[in-house]
Amino acid sequence: MTLASPVSAGRSGGRAARRAARAAPLANDLRAIQPGLQGGVLNVMSEADVLRIHHTALDALETIGLADAPASGIALLTSVGCTLGADGRLRFPRALVEDMLAKANRAVTLFSRDGKTDLDLQGPRVHYGTAGAAVHMVDVAGRHYRDSTVQDLHDAARICDVLDNLHFVQRPMVCRDIADNMEMDLNTIYACCAGTHKHVGTSFTDPAYVAPAIEMLHMIAGGEDNWRARPFVSNSNCFVVPPMKFATEACLVMEECIRAGMPVLLLSAGMAGATAPSTVAGAIVQAVAECLAGLVYVNALKPGHPAIFGTWPFGLDLRTGAMTGGSGEQALLSAGCAQMHRFYDLPGGAAAGIADSKLPDMQAGWEQMCSNVMAGLSGLNMVYEAAGMHASLLGFCHESLVLSDDLIGQALRCVRGIEVTEETMALDQIAEVCLGGPGHYLGTNQTLSRMQRDYVYPTLGDRTSPKEWVEKGKPDLLAKATARKELILSQRSSARFTPELDAELRQKFNIHLPA
Amino acid sequence: MTLASPVSAGRSGGRAARRAARAAPLANDLRAIQPGLQGGVLNVMSEADVLRIHHTALDALETIGLADAPASGIALLTSVGCTLGADGRLRFPRALVEDMLAKANRAVTLFSRDGKTDLDLQGPRVHYGTAGAAVHMVDVAGRHYRDSTVQDLHDAARICDVLDNLHFVQRPMVCRDIADNMEMDLNTIYACCAGTHKHVGTSFTDPAYVAPAIEMLHMIAGGEDNWRARPFVSNSNCFVVPPMKFATEACLVMEECIRAGMPVLLLSAGMAGATAPSTVAGAIVQAVAECLAGLVYVNALKPGHPAIFGTWPFGLDLRTGAMTGGSGEQALLSAGCAQMHRFYDLPGGAAAGIADSKLPDMQAGWEQMCSNVMAGLSGLNMVYEAAGMHASLLGFCHESLVLSDDLIGQALRCVRGIEVTEETMALDQIAEVCLGGPGHYLGTNQTLSRMQRDYVYPTLGDRTSPKEWVEKGKPDLLAKATARKELILSQRSSARFTPELDAELRQKFNIHLPA
Repeated sequence: MTLASPVSAGRSGGRAARRAARAAPLANDLRAIQPGLQGGVLNVMSEADVLRIHHTALDALETIGLADAPASGIALLTSVGCTLGADGRLRFPRALVEDMLAKANRAVTLFSRDGKTDLDLQGPRVHYGTAGAAVHMVDVAGRHYRDSTVQDLHDAARICDVLDNLHFVQRPMVCRDIADNMEMDLNTIYACCAGTHKHVGTSFTDPAYVAPAIEMLHMIAGGEDNWRARPFVSNSNCFVVPPMKFATEACLVMEECIRAGMPVLLLSAGMAGATAPSTVAGAIVQAVAECLAGLVYVNALKPGHPAIFGTWPFGLDLRTGAMTGGSGEQALLSAGCAQMHRFYDLPGGAAAGIADSKLPDMQAGWEQMCSNVMAGLSGLNMVYEAAGMHASLLGFCHESLVLSDDLIGQALRCVRGIEVTEETMALDQIAEVCLGGPGHYLGTNQTLSRMQRDYVYPTLGDRTSPKEWVEKGKPDLLAKATARKELILSQRSSARFTPELDAELRQKFNIHLPA
Repeated sequence: MTLASPVSAGRSGGRAARRAARAAPLANDLRAIQPGLQGGVLNVMSEADVLRIHHTALDALETIGLADAPASGIALLTSVGCTLGADGRLRFPRALVEDMLAKANRAVTLFSRDGKTDLDLQGPRVHYGTAGAAVHMVDVAGRHYRDSTVQDLHDAARICDVLDNLHFVQRPMVCRDIADNMEMDLNTIYACCAGTHKHVGTSFTDPAYVAPAIEMLHMIAGGEDNWRARPFVSNSNCFVVPPMKFATEACLVMEECIRAGMPVLLLSAGMAGATAPSTVAGAIVQAVAECLAGLVYVNALKPGHPAIFGTWPFGLDLRTGAMTGGSGEQALLSAGCAQMHRFYDLPGGAAAGIADSKLPDMQAGWEQMCSNVMAGLSGLNMVYEAAGMHASLLGFCHESLVLSDDLIGQALRCVRGIEVTEETMALDQIAEVCLGGPGHYLGTNQTLSRMQRDYVYPTLGDRTSPKEWVEKGKPDLLAKATARKELILSQRSSARFTPELDAELRQKFNIHLPA
């Protein structure tokens, strides 16, 4: 059964024209999926549960508080109403937290460098992208893990740049070929921004590295004003060491970034069963408490500074104590966090799409989809680590990243949901087809008109029949992914800097990527 | 980081005992997941949308109706209030449909043969199992498709029998080595029941084959009374040929099955864009209308007869007109249907877990998980075709079936959801750990006590670190699945018939499986 025959039977003239029309790329608003589709139809907790978690988090902030704030943070936070205990812990009165929640920025946009892929984080709008700190690259052909390099990072950014369903590029791996931490941080920004116009996320090892990075970003932006108008890099900031301790140095990094106009991701990465309670609810309570502390910190320093509520609890395999990210528990952790973000109406992010599997195999597929689709359905604004992540975050894989474009595309189709209107319920069409009509819907105007707007087609995913599959030589999914990766990397990146800018950057900074 | 060290540090005596305790199988109520966990937290449509679909389906039944009922059906349905039009179509007044909805059985149990794995379909209880009519077996080692046989079917049943997360065995493939249709139908029942005690689903090519099948089932049950008390086989019945036509012969099969006390699955398998509207909402409207017609039929014949509301719309790839089951659209079709079942509070089933991929690769993993987890979260009672299905239902794969136990296990963990109580929110524990405590949750009583009850551990899924993975020789997922398949099939099946019964069956019927 093919569409071609009934269509061409009725109106043979336009067949070639229609084929050509179908092959042409669609305008963004005609595509079935876009960045920022609204989720929120999945509620893994009841409203009462959400409220209880909120109140328990407030209790934790009021009675337990957080240790290890830097001196500047202690001064700032006590000045707005926190109390410093004899045990060195800052405690947060609930009225203070509620005040700061009211001040928080709810209209955050994460900018792209060229203005084409800005991310609007209002409401339950969903965006998928990379993140993490993998230390290995997965060599698929050799079934081998090796150290990740700055070239690997740049290549990942370039691949993301051309994949429609990857909406931002937070640094997914560490440049292990750069020994100096400052050079690593600066080269990370260079490698990402030289590879993509999409919004970039990065982190800093030391507060002292923020200033040179900002200098680099001013140069890339064409001046400080341009940078501050549209900051296209955000700071992924592990401002807490769970349970309930500020990360002293990271807080200082955060202060620097806020002064420099860089959006911050308040990242609380507790591990359920190790640095957070082993229960899903307990891990969410603690992550929410920690991120609320971060939110108070940010808004005490600069009310309304763009910040992402980054409750990122991870799962553990309690049999071994090892981190695991591909489990149902992980999917629930992130979906539950997304629900808390919706409750607060704050821009939020969490981790999903992590595979524990070492390779892009069937296990990786089910692991990545489970948490990715649930995060999207829950309306998570920023789905971090959504692509390419293997070995429970230790390995990054370019082939897997390429395949994620298909995987996330189907997840996004689910996020888009079901449109129920008179037209889509199609009673007239059912009557027309059944009562003296052709008895099928192939080639009806309604079917043809929805072919592109409603359906997501895989790029590399295989939908052939067994017969066609044999005729095509039984194509291997990973071989196709490798070929697409190589094609992308063989092409000139549209995001690369002008030769003039590049020369200036290389003069100012020790850039490790070859020119 | 491992659990062993902090645990043993505090109480070194019981370590071996605890290890032994952890290795022992858990009682069912202590396991993290069970059959029949309640879903329903995913609502892909609003309540208003659900009502609109309901009313539009009633409109379709009232104004379009269904053609091609058998004479017996026409007599029956006109006797309860349907009208027969000059166009041969039976139309259903909404009051009739509403009356029959009120009479329908909402307390359906699908029985197992040994009473250990009965399926309670009340409320949004979720069960996963096989189904379908694949014509090929996927030979993973040879990357090859071949004709499926009765031995393959029997082996599939035997594999399902030992997999905890496969809850029923509806015939997933056709015995292509049996040319005679009646022998095929009878051998299908034999091959399934000889392989598993779990509930079995099957279909009949011809109404005349029901009587001998029932004779076989009486023999297996130990008499008609036993069979009627606990019918352990249900009839998967394609009673409609979408759009909006009864399948004349299948209706007669259904009548026979109802008289014989066999539960029926009212299966409406429209293809969106071909035999159903191309829109998700339209395909659901038509499937609901068709299944409501079936429900009227069943309850007119025998009020309260156990029937499953089988809205099974499938997706098409509209570019080629070929069936596709691994898409986001498919996941939405099935999730939307599950929501309609909840609205009617009827036992319901639909298809999920279908892979378009030809092999159990990464694509298969994401395709199977997407619709399986969404079906579960939507509270679908019977998730059919949940395991082993490749090539858009044309191929069945034993290795994939084995792996699905892990995949569905994680989906079920998501269905179980988040338990929010004082205990799980863990405020006391957070305080204890942070305020003068160890600063981590490893080895707390709460963590240890939840290790089995809250967490689902993969059987074959790999969670090792890259280092351990290398040390273990980089195990291949499919090789592990093949080994487990072979281990299962090398063991004696606990479901096999007694030698006496087997001899009787073989005397009475031409059984193709070797004794």
